Amino acid sequence: MPDKQLHLTAFMRPVSLHTGAWRYPNSYPDANFNLAHLKSFIKKLEDAKFDAFFMADHLAVLNMPVEALKRSHTVTSFEPFTLLSALSVVTERIGLAATASTTYDEPYHIARRFASLDHLSSGRAAWNIVTTGNPEASKNFGRDEHLEHSERYKRAREFYDVVTGLWDSFADDAFIRDQESGIFLDPEKIHVLDHKGDDLQVRGPLNIARPVQGWPVIVQAGQSEPGRQLAAETAEAVFCSPRDLESAKALYADIKGRATAAGRDRDHLKILPAAFIVVGDTVEEAQGKRLALDSLVHYDSAIASLSIALGTEASGFDPDGPLPTDLPETNASKTSRASVVKLAEDEKLSVRQLAQRLGGYSGLAFVGTPETIAAAMETWLQEEGADGFTVVFPFLPQGLDDVTQRVVPELQRRGIFRQEYTGTTLREHLGLPRPTNQFFS
Amino acid sequence: MPDKQLHLTAFMRPVSLHTGAWRYPNSYPDANFNLAHLKSFIKKLEDAKFDAFFMADHLAVLNMPVEALKRSHTVTSFEPFTLLSALSVVTERIGLAATASTTYDEPYHIARRFASLDHLSSGRAAWNIVTTGNPEASKNFGRDEHLEHSERYKRAREFYDVVTGLWDSFADDAFIRDQESGIFLDPEKIHVLDHKGDDLQVRGPLNIARPVQGWPVIVQAGQSEPGRQLAAETAEAVFCSPRDLESAKALYADIKGRATAAGRDRDHLKILPAAFIVVGDTVEEAQGKRLALDSLVHYDSAIASLSIALGTEASGFDPDGPLPTDLPETNASKTSRASVVKLAEDEKLSVRQLAQRLGGYSGLAFVGTPETIAAAMETWLQEEGADGFTVVFPFLPQGLDDVTQRVVPELQRRGIFRQEYTGTTLREHLGLPRPTNQFFS
Repeated sequence: MPDKQLHLTAFMRPVSLHTGAWRYPNSYPDANFNLAHLKSFIKKLEDAKFDAFFMADHLAVLNMPVEALKRSHTVTSFEPFTLLSALSVVTERIGLAATASTTYDEPYHIARRFASLDHLSSGRAAWNIVTTGNPEASKNFGRDEHLEHSERYKRAREFYDVVTGLWDSFADDAFIRDQESGIFLDPEKIHVLDHKGDDLQVRGPLNIARPVQGWPVIVQAGQSEPGRQLAAETAEAVFCSPRDLESAKALYADIKGRATAAGRDRDHLKILPAAFIVVGDTVEEAQGKRLALDSLVHYDSAIASLSIALGTEASGFDPDGPLPTDLPETNASKTSRASVVKLAEDEKLSVRQLAQRLGGYSGLAFVGTPETIAAAMETWLQEEGADGFTVVFPFLPQGLDDVTQRVVPELQRRGIFRQEYTGTTLREHLGLPRPTNQFFS
Repeated sequence: MPDKQLHLTAFMRPVSLHTGAWRYPNSYPDANFNLAHLKSFIKKLEDAKFDAFFMADHLAVLNMPVEALKRSHTVTSFEPFTLLSALSVVTERIGLAATASTTYDEPYHIARRFASLDHLSSGRAAWNIVTTGNPEASKNFGRDEHLEHSERYKRAREFYDVVTGLWDSFADDAFIRDQESGIFLDPEKIHVLDHKGDDLQVRGPLNIARPVQGWPVIVQAGQSEPGRQLAAETAEAVFCSPRDLESAKALYADIKGRATAAGRDRDHLKILPAAFIVVGDTVEEAQGKRLALDSLVHYDSAIASLSIALGTEASGFDPDGPLPTDLPETNASKTSRASVVKLAEDEKLSVRQLAQRLGGYSGLAFVGTPETIAAAMETWLQEEGADGFTVVFPFLPQGLDDVTQRVVPELQRRGIFRQEYTGTTLREHLGLPRPTNQFFS
């Protein structure tokens, strides 16, 4: 069996990022907000031995034109902690990753909730640290102006120190619970953090025992310069969105290099790009499914996405013709335009199809048979483009079943994905060490 | 069957308020922090048709002398939302009441989490509004000084308006989910709150559908003047701690009167005093169990409680003698001293026993046989001292089993407690109406 093993997490909030997903034939239109469906999804992912179930988050209804809003299947969702806590009871092994913001929450609350989820799930919690880039969120939290980018990252770094410090409030063996003597805990094994920093003042101790994993697994999703640096210093899993293997390898090398420079073991940080997976009996059938899915994206929303990507108004183009070759010069990003033009040529897409691709899901995609998809994943793993993937499903339940029942067995046949869980905690699934307590050794 | 029906909620964080509970013979020393135990408790409470499982909360490890701290079984607990969400999956009918602070949290977070819990549980959530009186909490949330009492209540009132306004962000029928037309929701059925008040600015809308119950049930626990007024204006269930039936009747009349004055239906506000219940085959056996439980309170902590209650240093008294009759005059509360002196006389308690009573649990208690306890509860119900009780267990699991298996059947025999749930939501259990949406009728 090859040494290198792939890690798989499932992107589950929303359950599909594709805007047309809820309309696909035989899909659940309310998949995002139906507990029975979500229970069945996580059980299938656990049966397939996925590392984790990953919930992104937004602290607002996203600002979008009413034509897009009324077609959005993501406007109503469960809140991550309540949902993951509920799902922890119906699963035993799969990791539970929740997003929480360092800009619009308090470190005492965050430390406590993740510790509680980690105890409830016997060591399966992960914290996806975000600084909340969406300016709409600020208006829901009493601020007219969004906190500036570098300020957010500075606060995030301090916030991480406070949260991890609070998790270490109690030594692992602080609780004695001796009924005979009446001694419940050893007061020498409580640490009062008493943090006083630039942005935060938090006394402690936390009112919950140290998490089962020591610290829940730390996840980071930033790709900006401060985001990469924060990830290199703190993250144990990185969610990212490279477009192709070349850019993925550059990102992989950069973040691992920064981690090494920060004195960390590069294997203790797993790079997990988002990958949209569409499976067919043939590559052509899979491509056909994708086109059928894209065709469910409303044209008015879609053409706006194309106009933005091209930097020119596209609504006058013939929807059923090819992309015009005489596009006017603009100040828009040449890289963005070039990649759109190349996409149209490569896949021979009409203006409508191109627009619907951009309005649906246009990130990294593996579209093919279980064999071609598994082969591509293995290449990414071997060439250091990825340590695994954050799988984005095109529609549910079928798109999820295709991955768990068809792609995963092919990965297992190749010897690059587990047949059974060998540990019980998410740290064990990911091959990460349990942090020692910084105040008690 | 009598018209008036009793409501029962269980005080479950901590699972026992008695400081010696974890040491009682055959009790679980870790009952407060063991998911398997908590699951079994809530299932037993649901089998007994309790209205709700109630979680108090603290946002800090309480400040106490190290001698008390090391004996405290409540220092580590699950966080209310994560625990109740997990327990929602293993139950079907019982209500789930969580405490959340208006001083140290954000209304958008609170509205969202309670809405999420209400959806996960199909309409069983309740919000116990607290303003967090513990000054230790302020130090965990970046403030050196605790927010002043009247300021806290002013903010709480505004916070309630914002949270209930956010719950009404979507009309009940906003979500269409028509796969054919691609219309997921009706944008005319979204309300943007755009609240701008003295303490809070929150735009909205909330990113989750209106709760199943319209609004989760509102609980309030204040007994101060502003606390009573806030309860009268907003609460649908009131947790309180009267010492006896006379004071309970006065409190009941006062809060119901304030509710009527505020234009509310007095039956839409249930008064549920805390009651510590110890059951025996005879009254004497129950009293003996209580003395045995009290004897597990450490004397050093206990005598400090007695000194405070008497307003004089009690550590020099003979532990095994009666309370001295020549207590020196002090400036301490005469009411407090008189009630302690009366307690010692009534129950013929030694100094040690008296101290351990005060250091254990000294609030309202029903100690007797299932028949005497049920009779007392019926008297309180008929004489308008209570609409039900928030039951405090002396030790677990036995103390909980005694109530669910012995007291509840006696209440059912008397026709003052349900044999089966007749509704599915907590509002239905409590006989409360579902609020209409203030923005969509």
